[in-house]
Amino acid sequence: MSTQKAEAKFIDDNFETFVLQLQEAVRKPSIAAQNVGMNEAAQHFKRLMETHGISARLIPTRGGYPCVYGEVKGESDRTVLFYNHYDVQPPDPLDEWESGPFSGDIRDGKIYARGVSDNKGNACARIQAVGTMLKLRKQLPITVKFLIEGEEEIGSPHLGEFIRDNAGLLEADYGVWESGYMNPSGRPGMYLGVKGMLYVELIARGASRDMHSGSATTIPNPAWRLVWALSAIKDENEQILIPGFYDDVLSPTDKEMELLRDAIGDKQMNDSEAHNIARENARALGLKSYLLDLYGLDLRKRSLFSPTANICGFSAGYLGKGQKTVLPARALVKMDFRLVPDQDPEDILSKLRNHLDSQGFGDIEVRLISLDYPVKTPADLPVVDAATEAVISVYGRPPVISPTQGGSGPMYPFKKYLGLPMVSFGVGYWGSSNHGPNENIRLEDYRAGIKMAVEFIDKLAETG
Amino acid sequence: MSTQKAEAKFIDDNFETFVLQLQEAVRKPSIAAQNVGMNEAAQHFKRLMETHGISARLIPTRGGYPCVYGEVKGESDRTVLFYNHYDVQPPDPLDEWESGPFSGDIRDGKIYARGVSDNKGNACARIQAVGTMLKLRKQLPITVKFLIEGEEEIGSPHLGEFIRDNAGLLEADYGVWESGYMNPSGRPGMYLGVKGMLYVELIARGASRDMHSGSATTIPNPAWRLVWALSAIKDENEQILIPGFYDDVLSPTDKEMELLRDAIGDKQMNDSEAHNIARENARALGLKSYLLDLYGLDLRKRSLFSPTANICGFSAGYLGKGQKTVLPARALVKMDFRLVPDQDPEDILSKLRNHLDSQGFGDIEVRLISLDYPVKTPADLPVVDAATEAVISVYGRPPVISPTQGGSGPMYPFKKYLGLPMVSFGVGYWGSSNHGPNENIRLEDYRAGIKMAVEFIDKLAETG
Repeated sequence: MSTQKAEAKFIDDNFETFVLQLQEAVRKPSIAAQNVGMNEAAQHFKRLMETHGISARLIPTRGGYPCVYGEVKGESDRTVLFYNHYDVQPPDPLDEWESGPFSGDIRDGKIYARGVSDNKGNACARIQAVGTMLKLRKQLPITVKFLIEGEEEIGSPHLGEFIRDNAGLLEADYGVWESGYMNPSGRPGMYLGVKGMLYVELIARGASRDMHSGSATTIPNPAWRLVWALSAIKDENEQILIPGFYDDVLSPTDKEMELLRDAIGDKQMNDSEAHNIARENARALGLKSYLLDLYGLDLRKRSLFSPTANICGFSAGYLGKGQKTVLPARALVKMDFRLVPDQDPEDILSKLRNHLDSQGFGDIEVRLISLDYPVKTPADLPVVDAATEAVISVYGRPPVISPTQGGSGPMYPFKKYLGLPMVSFGVGYWGSSNHGPNENIRLEDYRAGIKMAVEFIDKLAETG
Repeated sequence: MSTQKAEAKFIDDNFETFVLQLQEAVRKPSIAAQNVGMNEAAQHFKRLMETHGISARLIPTRGGYPCVYGEVKGESDRTVLFYNHYDVQPPDPLDEWESGPFSGDIRDGKIYARGVSDNKGNACARIQAVGTMLKLRKQLPITVKFLIEGEEEIGSPHLGEFIRDNAGLLEADYGVWESGYMNPSGRPGMYLGVKGMLYVELIARGASRDMHSGSATTIPNPAWRLVWALSAIKDENEQILIPGFYDDVLSPTDKEMELLRDAIGDKQMNDSEAHNIARENARALGLKSYLLDLYGLDLRKRSLFSPTANICGFSAGYLGKGQKTVLPARALVKMDFRLVPDQDPEDILSKLRNHLDSQGFGDIEVRLISLDYPVKTPADLPVVDAATEAVISVYGRPPVISPTQGGSGPMYPFKKYLGLPMVSFGVGYWGSSNHGPNENIRLEDYRAGIKMAVEFIDKLAETG
């Protein structure tokens, strides 16, 4: 029996214990946005690491929730750093959960709880993988570090400075991002980057109080101001009109285009079949078609490689039922711009401000809410190969590799301060419902996820 | 002591009682849009009329709130009909009120409450005026009728058919519209017409549920659809872009231009003085200037003779604090178009629909909420002279006569089914804040308003 197979057997033999450990973790609510149970959850992950033979401690951030840091020295100094978070989204809307959001109930081979997919399942699986290896061997082949933060769901406000302040401690050669999802065709998803984000509020002001709309002949209306300003930001063809907005957008490399083709190529389809399938998927969402009627490769390319300018919320005047004839004093828009490499959110913010000024909208206030830089790891690095080989070994099929993803996250400080190439895989699946009610993972994905972490560490050790 | 003076003295002697009666009326919330307190308010006005010797009853509308009808036979069959309404606007935004919106608190000689200016103060003053005359004389010189409806603030959906159905009962020679406002120079405003209105909701729909904004690359956003559609309705120079929108707009007559000049001519001003005064007034409202930096005659002309396209409310996506990255499923805009003679709201509605269709916005639903036709009474009729003389007698100065006003109202059925010429005067002032927080009237204006109604009835009786 090879070492790897011994670990697989150990994981199978101890799987009930591992699931119980996961249930314990998700039964502790830890909602950063509401300051619920945060310290308890940090302590819990420290103890779980210690249970598995990992030396662990809490490290404070500057005014935020502490990070849990864990470390196991390996035969070689080469080091992999696992990033996860112990905080979870608020569980609302509560009445849409079929069992309590912190019950950890198991039904039909799935375990249900807020945070089980995002992100405690991944944290537990990786800790248990290292624990398993330590049980069966004298030493890990390489050094493994864990960084589990407590503020991801509120935008990781202290993570950047934490990594900068602790760059020596966190030093590593490879990074593993928080999660990954099995896709509907049964191939595990692997992710090499995240989009960046610029989140702003645009505020227009009119008279100092709401007025009777009879005065609309002579009193400026801030809702109209925002309508016109927004029309100057993006046109009906989805072109973003801020000068220079697209300047730093990188085209996909040949390798990335190959990955896109592989991702949609599970079935051999002609063009018209692909179009029909896209329309069918769109109809399931209540749409006639996807934006610009895209499908197939164009759809996936746009999804991963295009930046966006999105209206998250627009609020002005009377929002209740029926008729109120009012001329609002104030109008507010919340927008997120999802950014792709090498767009710089601070640069985009300044281009947005300049554009509004030059189009006559100097009166509109732009309030920065948060920003994240986009990151992608080149697809041809050895760490990507190691992860790919581990997936093939554990799942018997290759991963669907996404050069980046639609969502954003605080991956940038790992690149900036530690120079880490990042890959991401994990225990979720396409139906995990992160951030939604009935968040869940499948137990078999969880079992495979623990084995995957073992296999990945070994494959990394074999990498030159 | 003349009869008129006896009434004035009676009003002064009983003014505290009259103010208490007004406080009772405004302390009953009666919000038609929210179905709050409507029947109670109708009953209250019926009882108030009876208290003042006016024969009164409720008459149902076809499916709406009842009208309060009151009548006092006079020496002559000549008849004046007073129109008012007992419903009020919703009091939002609540946190901007300095005292409860239904407190009726008195501070610095002003009484504060939602509806005190629009329109319960006027209804009470007129009832108290007739009550005073009945106390001091055997009979009124002419017949007086009251029609107090309960749906003005939701667009008077049943008033037209009510007047048509009860045209015999409501028959009259002159009509008095709901309100009037003292202007800052101390001259009472008198109004000879109203703007029309078309109130609609525009609704855009995207996916069948709110989505994570990471999918903004491929999922259409209904808030953007509305932004672009609105930009096709009015441009930044305040030009309304619906083809044919301005076709039926009448220019002011020579007599109307004379009234406009009189209205702004209280002080002899040169152009630059007029400009400065307009800017100062605008600054008092928190603005740099009025729309398009207008002032003087142009400002007043636009205010009375221009139609508008106003955004009353815009609601889409996340409206709470902080950051939520969401792609909304639905976006809704509430708009009112104020119309001037001879624009036809039904014609404008159809032009709006055609315009949206032709601009590629066939997906946007246009929902009709209410409509009113514009009306104006010719300025050279005897009823206008009678009201003018009454103003001079009570206030010692002539009224500022507006051929129409910024606001709208259901005056059209009075013209169509009863053939009534309408004048309007009342107890409000330039700072009354109708529809806004801290709605109020000044007690001295209220006192004068009761006297004005007495005097107007007598002057009408003298009219040939």
